[in-house]
Amino acid sequence: MPTSENNEPLLAQLQQRLREIADLEGAAAVLNWDRVTYMPPGGASARARQLATLRQLAHAKFTDPKMGELLESLELEYRDRPYDSDEASLIRIVRRDYDRAVRIPAAFLAEFSQHRATCYEAWAKARQADDFEIVRPYLEKTLELSRERASFFPESDHIADSAIQSADYGYTVAELKPLFEQLRSQLVPIVEAIGDRREIDDSCLHQHFPEERQLLFCHRAIARMGYDFSRGRQDKTLHPFMTKFSLGDVRITTRVYESHLGQALFSSIHEAGHALYEQGISEAFEASPLGRGASSGLHESQSRLWENIVARSRGFWEYFYNQLQGVFLSQLGQISTEKFYRAINKVRRSLIRTDADEVTYNLHVAIRFDLELALLEGKLSVRDLPEAWRERYRQDLGIVPDSDRDGVLQDVHWYDGAIGGRFQSYTLGNLMSVQFYQQAIAEDPEIPVDIERGNLQTLHQWLKRNIYRHGSKYTANECLQRVTGQSLSVNPFIHYIREKYGDLYGLS
Amino acid sequence: MPTSENNEPLLAQLQQRLREIADLEGAAAVLNWDRVTYMPPGGASARARQLATLRQLAHAKFTDPKMGELLESLELEYRDRPYDSDEASLIRIVRRDYDRAVRIPAAFLAEFSQHRATCYEAWAKARQADDFEIVRPYLEKTLELSRERASFFPESDHIADSAIQSADYGYTVAELKPLFEQLRSQLVPIVEAIGDRREIDDSCLHQHFPEERQLLFCHRAIARMGYDFSRGRQDKTLHPFMTKFSLGDVRITTRVYESHLGQALFSSIHEAGHALYEQGISEAFEASPLGRGASSGLHESQSRLWENIVARSRGFWEYFYNQLQGVFLSQLGQISTEKFYRAINKVRRSLIRTDADEVTYNLHVAIRFDLELALLEGKLSVRDLPEAWRERYRQDLGIVPDSDRDGVLQDVHWYDGAIGGRFQSYTLGNLMSVQFYQQAIAEDPEIPVDIERGNLQTLHQWLKRNIYRHGSKYTANECLQRVTGQSLSVNPFIHYIREKYGDLYGLS
Repeated sequence: MPTSENNEPLLAQLQQRLREIADLEGAAAVLNWDRVTYMPPGGASARARQLATLRQLAHAKFTDPKMGELLESLELEYRDRPYDSDEASLIRIVRRDYDRAVRIPAAFLAEFSQHRATCYEAWAKARQADDFEIVRPYLEKTLELSRERASFFPESDHIADSAIQSADYGYTVAELKPLFEQLRSQLVPIVEAIGDRREIDDSCLHQHFPEERQLLFCHRAIARMGYDFSRGRQDKTLHPFMTKFSLGDVRITTRVYESHLGQALFSSIHEAGHALYEQGISEAFEASPLGRGASSGLHESQSRLWENIVARSRGFWEYFYNQLQGVFLSQLGQISTEKFYRAINKVRRSLIRTDADEVTYNLHVAIRFDLELALLEGKLSVRDLPEAWRERYRQDLGIVPDSDRDGVLQDVHWYDGAIGGRFQSYTLGNLMSVQFYQQAIAEDPEIPVDIERGNLQTLHQWLKRNIYRHGSKYTANECLQRVTGQSLSVNPFIHYIREKYGDLYGLS
Repeated sequence: MPTSENNEPLLAQLQQRLREIADLEGAAAVLNWDRVTYMPPGGASARARQLATLRQLAHAKFTDPKMGELLESLELEYRDRPYDSDEASLIRIVRRDYDRAVRIPAAFLAEFSQHRATCYEAWAKARQADDFEIVRPYLEKTLELSRERASFFPESDHIADSAIQSADYGYTVAELKPLFEQLRSQLVPIVEAIGDRREIDDSCLHQHFPEERQLLFCHRAIARMGYDFSRGRQDKTLHPFMTKFSLGDVRITTRVYESHLGQALFSSIHEAGHALYEQGISEAFEASPLGRGASSGLHESQSRLWENIVARSRGFWEYFYNQLQGVFLSQLGQISTEKFYRAINKVRRSLIRTDADEVTYNLHVAIRFDLELALLEGKLSVRDLPEAWRERYRQDLGIVPDSDRDGVLQDVHWYDGAIGGRFQSYTLGNLMSVQFYQQAIAEDPEIPVDIERGNLQTLHQWLKRNIYRHGSKYTANECLQRVTGQSLSVNPFIHYIREKYGDLYGLS
């Protein structure tokens, strides 16, 4: 076993370096969590600087040429190890990420990072004032920088591919574009058919639900899912998210609307779905690049599986509705399980992606995906973006936002990072969630029965065994293939939607 | 102005390096704050590793030989700058700290840091079990390492001097020892005289005080002091402390005993005193070594000034007692201001330093200071420490702990760090607090009158102007000299004690 001057095996040296990088990234995650939960306003400017320092140090350590040398030696030393051994997997994943990271010059990263902060501030002002013009010049600069970043990957077939790869390794525009077209062509008619039916009455969700009691029920539900509070916690914030500091400290955040029961409830279950994935990764991968979710899309498949397939199902509420009624007796005591089930699955042509139901959600994503491509391809200018946005909403959802705040300014994504690769993960997650769940119940038909009894552990353990524990050892595609024997497909999702919403809305 | 290859002025290069180090230290402070406030138990082991990584990186960056080169060039370049210019001060303070830091080998630091964690754990167990033997071997190792650390500073007159210097630069055993002897010889007779008088009745403090209302009053009081909640916050923890992430984010923590009013109240005011100092430092010193308190002793002088001289004075309660009664009407409605004032100043021969009154406090410190010296000098073995502790309590305070938990195991200091230099700051703070306050009222006799009216800003602004804003530009000694024209002295403190407690206990 080759060793270095200091006589330590090369693999241990690599792991030591990776651990240091993980520590810097973990520290940055703590600082960011604190920033959006407890930090007083006076801390903002220094905190931005501290975060930049930590990230810059982590990047410098990861792109250190010594890392490349170590990888080369290790690839030789471990060339006979099986593909799915921990050692070969670590070397393979670090190589993949290293080769991508070293392409981007440090000076470019610094410039982009600076610009992101400025653009984000301009967006916050623009959104407040409902005036796209405030942020337009910044977004134009973002587009320019996004193109420049793509230029560091000249071998890509499409200008958006490198950005997509950094979130969802293995997917390209060539595959995703037809997939979004297929989704759109099937979903638009369903939405139209639903539009002809009688509206579902969801007024039971819009009553006064005291915050403390909402949080109480959320805690119970996610604990039942298997979220381990001794290795995590839930705090309040403006935009809910999951964050990980180590395998033993995986936190979620939520927000509570006292006038709407769905917000905290489903966002808690969604974020807990992300957290179960991270809490379920093998301990052997702590502080290593294998110790995190495999891709944004695969991550989203886990959060959406719990949020939608499980927690918006009839079976889930067979057990939990009783408990929910116990917590909100005066609000829900007279509402039947069926009425509640229908309310939480109401489909509506709406303007806001994050509030969208399962049927329309992917149409919101498709619009953003297509506009991103058009911007990067130079077929659409930033100036014309708001109008293009309105036009696509008219076409696909039959409604038009009367303000940019509810239109092109609604999502932070383009304004706090690059254009490109920012939205496909949501749809990838929705599609995969159905594929995984169907495999789970094919292998263990007790799962839905157990869910009806309030036992979520059969499903949780299946997911942990088949997906969670592997961390990012396999790419999303590899994972899907290994677990379901299938590659990514639109059909299971469409089938699921037709069945569930056909029943709910009496479609033929 | 000499510049480097990249054409940046050398001072800017130094500042950039210092900023990066400050960012790492700030990040470590956030991680530590989270560790003792919100972290779930599962996060502990990774958090220890992350903290070690951040501190090790900060130390490596500070002791980088390039730092030494920069300092040499800058000392030349700025040699004509006045002593108290920001530039000369920065170079001087960084040189002082650099010369000390490079003495200690990185391998020693790593070993010590490892040992500290183990020793701390053993102490927690020993304290729980009330069994000194559990931690004894670890403490013996600590003593050995503390001696080794002292050996890196062979020019010191006394083996404890280098440790004392790192907390309280400028002070040595040669000065401190006579000072403690003087204090002891004057305080022991006062304690004895008080012991002959009738006990003060402080039962009014020992009632049920609901946590929420205690925190409400604490917030009001410290806001009145000038603690800026937009640049800080208060959270609950096990052992109260103040911590700073940046000049705009200075946090305090507290603990609340519902059966004792004094705990949260005086610890909040104490920590807020520390925080006022940090919040009051000139913004020009953000993320620089000048941007922190000058020494542990000077820091303690500010917390004790507010906690004792202000908040345990009759004048303070002239205004605030009404408010406190409003919050705790059923508990304090029938208790007079004078009765309350006497209760919060009750003197007792007690075993626990942190609960000690103003009169006995420095006796507790003197015991620890003398025992530390005896250990380092080899005149006392760790094995004989518990008995030596009991003997000194018998001599000085006339009482003997019947358990080591209330004896030698009570303070964490020796068990989570070095032996030596750990206790003198408390007494330095007490002495200086009186010197500063007397100077303040000599310069502005309105201060005590304003305090009686609930206006704490006259004092706050005086302290900010004379002490806070300078950060660590001047050493504690320089600061004391500049502000009061005097050097450190026991007499003002003894005079203050005689006057206040002579009145309270009717001593002649």
